[in-house]
Amino acid sequence: MIILVDAMGGDNAPDAIVNGCLDAVSEAEGFEVLLIGDEERIREILNKRSYDTSRVKIHHASEVITVEDTPTKAIKTKKDSSMVVGFKLLKEKKGDIFLSCGNSGALMAGALFILGRIKGVDRPAIAAIVPTKSGKGLIIDAGLNTVCKPVNYQQFGIMGSIYMKEMLGVDNPKVGLLNIGAEVGKGNETLKNAYSLLSESSINFVGNIEGNDVALGTVDVVVCDGFAGNVLLKFYEGAGSYFFSLIKGILLKNFKTKMAALLLKKDMKVIKMIMDADENGGAPILGVDGLVLKSHGSSNAKTIKNVVIKASKFAGTKVLEKIRQEFVNMEVEEIEQDL
Amino acid sequence: MIILVDAMGGDNAPDAIVNGCLDAVSEAEGFEVLLIGDEERIREILNKRSYDTSRVKIHHASEVITVEDTPTKAIKTKKDSSMVVGFKLLKEKKGDIFLSCGNSGALMAGALFILGRIKGVDRPAIAAIVPTKSGKGLIIDAGLNTVCKPVNYQQFGIMGSIYMKEMLGVDNPKVGLLNIGAEVGKGNETLKNAYSLLSESSINFVGNIEGNDVALGTVDVVVCDGFAGNVLLKFYEGAGSYFFSLIKGILLKNFKTKMAALLLKKDMKVIKMIMDADENGGAPILGVDGLVLKSHGSSNAKTIKNVVIKASKFAGTKVLEKIRQEFVNMEVEEIEQDL
Repeated sequence: MIILVDAMGGDNAPDAIVNGCLDAVSEAEGFEVLLIGDEERIREILNKRSYDTSRVKIHHASEVITVEDTPTKAIKTKKDSSMVVGFKLLKEKKGDIFLSCGNSGALMAGALFILGRIKGVDRPAIAAIVPTKSGKGLIIDAGLNTVCKPVNYQQFGIMGSIYMKEMLGVDNPKVGLLNIGAEVGKGNETLKNAYSLLSESSINFVGNIEGNDVALGTVDVVVCDGFAGNVLLKFYEGAGSYFFSLIKGILLKNFKTKMAALLLKKDMKVIKMIMDADENGGAPILGVDGLVLKSHGSSNAKTIKNVVIKASKFAGTKVLEKIRQEFVNMEVEEIEQDL
Repeated sequence: MIILVDAMGGDNAPDAIVNGCLDAVSEAEGFEVLLIGDEERIREILNKRSYDTSRVKIHHASEVITVEDTPTKAIKTKKDSSMVVGFKLLKEKKGDIFLSCGNSGALMAGALFILGRIKGVDRPAIAAIVPTKSGKGLIIDAGLNTVCKPVNYQQFGIMGSIYMKEMLGVDNPKVGLLNIGAEVGKGNETLKNAYSLLSESSINFVGNIEGNDVALGTVDVVVCDGFAGNVLLKFYEGAGSYFFSLIKGILLKNFKTKMAALLLKKDMKVIKMIMDADENGGAPILGVDGLVLKSHGSSNAKTIKNVVIKASKFAGTKVLEKIRQEFVNMEVEEIEQDL
């Protein structure tokens, strides 16, 4: 298994990326890493560390797509950028999965233009894992499609379901449609139609859910448009940071509370880890014809280490085949109904 | 000052409503309460307690609008319901503010049909206060208009600004437009146009904000459509509950952590109070021609007590006049530009 890594994307590239990959290689087995980017700069970082050289290779790419670049234009013109080269290597099956912290828009454009959509998929979506009261939940779409048609919600539900089952081992994942009321018939026409389509699907659709259900973990898969998904994800980060500042304020308040802080130190770390975005980093773009993991631009070496290991796990699943199969089946059913 | 209270609306009516009003009367000065609803049932609850009878009166209403009722139909047909009677008393200036925990849809319909909009306001909105890292923030619209036009966002910003200044004493409140990126030009056409209109307003518009800014308190007023606002508010509740369950799990884990819990007991209560929805209860419907406070259906006596006191404070502000004035000025300016 070869993990293709865009070594040049993100605020801390290439240092954090390269070091994170080396940490992943020394922590986990069963994969190689192909670092894509400026060979000289990557080599410099590699030379400072000792690692299993048989598992870490470099593929030179002379250009970099930055956050300032216009996504579609960058993908079309920067042919030798680490991102475009990564997508091409994936398409040519020189690797099993492609991982990048680079320009999100360009990553989407590249996935769509170079890999293409899986037959039958109308719009790909980003799927993001969040911690919930009952474990882990998936938000899909987490930011790709700000406006959606009813069929998109249905497809997000199907793809999200497959991901939760294959990747996290959740049996018959519960799928909910994010709405402003739990009752049937809530929301605008688009959401009402999305509700109908989700109901007709073979997935375990449990109906409308509300905002509070997301963190409570009432369902395993939260289906929403990319605007709501992006707002929720970022809000969660902000709320987590706010909560911790409240707790921290208390724990450092006086001698008595500092004593308590000492007693709780180990356990507080566990909570911090649960809420840590770095631990839940790496969101797949589902619906494109290849495995792509997006990590946030500010990813540090620790994030990258986790995401590389996650990528190796993801590449070992049948998510892609199952999505392909599901959408082929849907098309066959539609043709049968038309005849 | 007379606070009109719908004694029959909400899951715990009339007991929680009546008792909450009595608690408010005994805790704070400067207002009377007019309880609207089934006189016999209200009298029964009142008789169990001693209170300042000069400050608590009853206005009989024979009907009740329930959560099962269709909003518009209920307002049109249940003429003697506590809600419709409450709105009418407010319109006839028999009271200064109307407070209800009843059917939200009906409350909106009643506000629109009986009170009407302030001249110049296209769509009224619900404004909800949430705790943030820097104090308190306002989310507007918190659930009334699921789909909005650019001008609605602009008006939400103006009304929210006035509310934060007059009600919470925030000088020159910072207003942000909830979007999926902080840069200018983010979001769909509606949001781009909303951005332009907000920029042209006389308020302190600071630009686009993202989900994390809400809990961090980057701005004082978060402008969004009612879908995002509702989802955010409810998500906040769910995240708060999840977070407390994590902390509680730690504090009750073993002897050592229980010791810490004892040391932190008093301070944890402060955090709980900050995050408590009951403490932040009571959201005004801004843009209608009268003061209306909506409290959630599950409000208990404590919520009601807080909301009644909040209502007395709200009725003492110039929010309504300032909104009227602002929108008249806007119209005058438009006419001047047309001439």
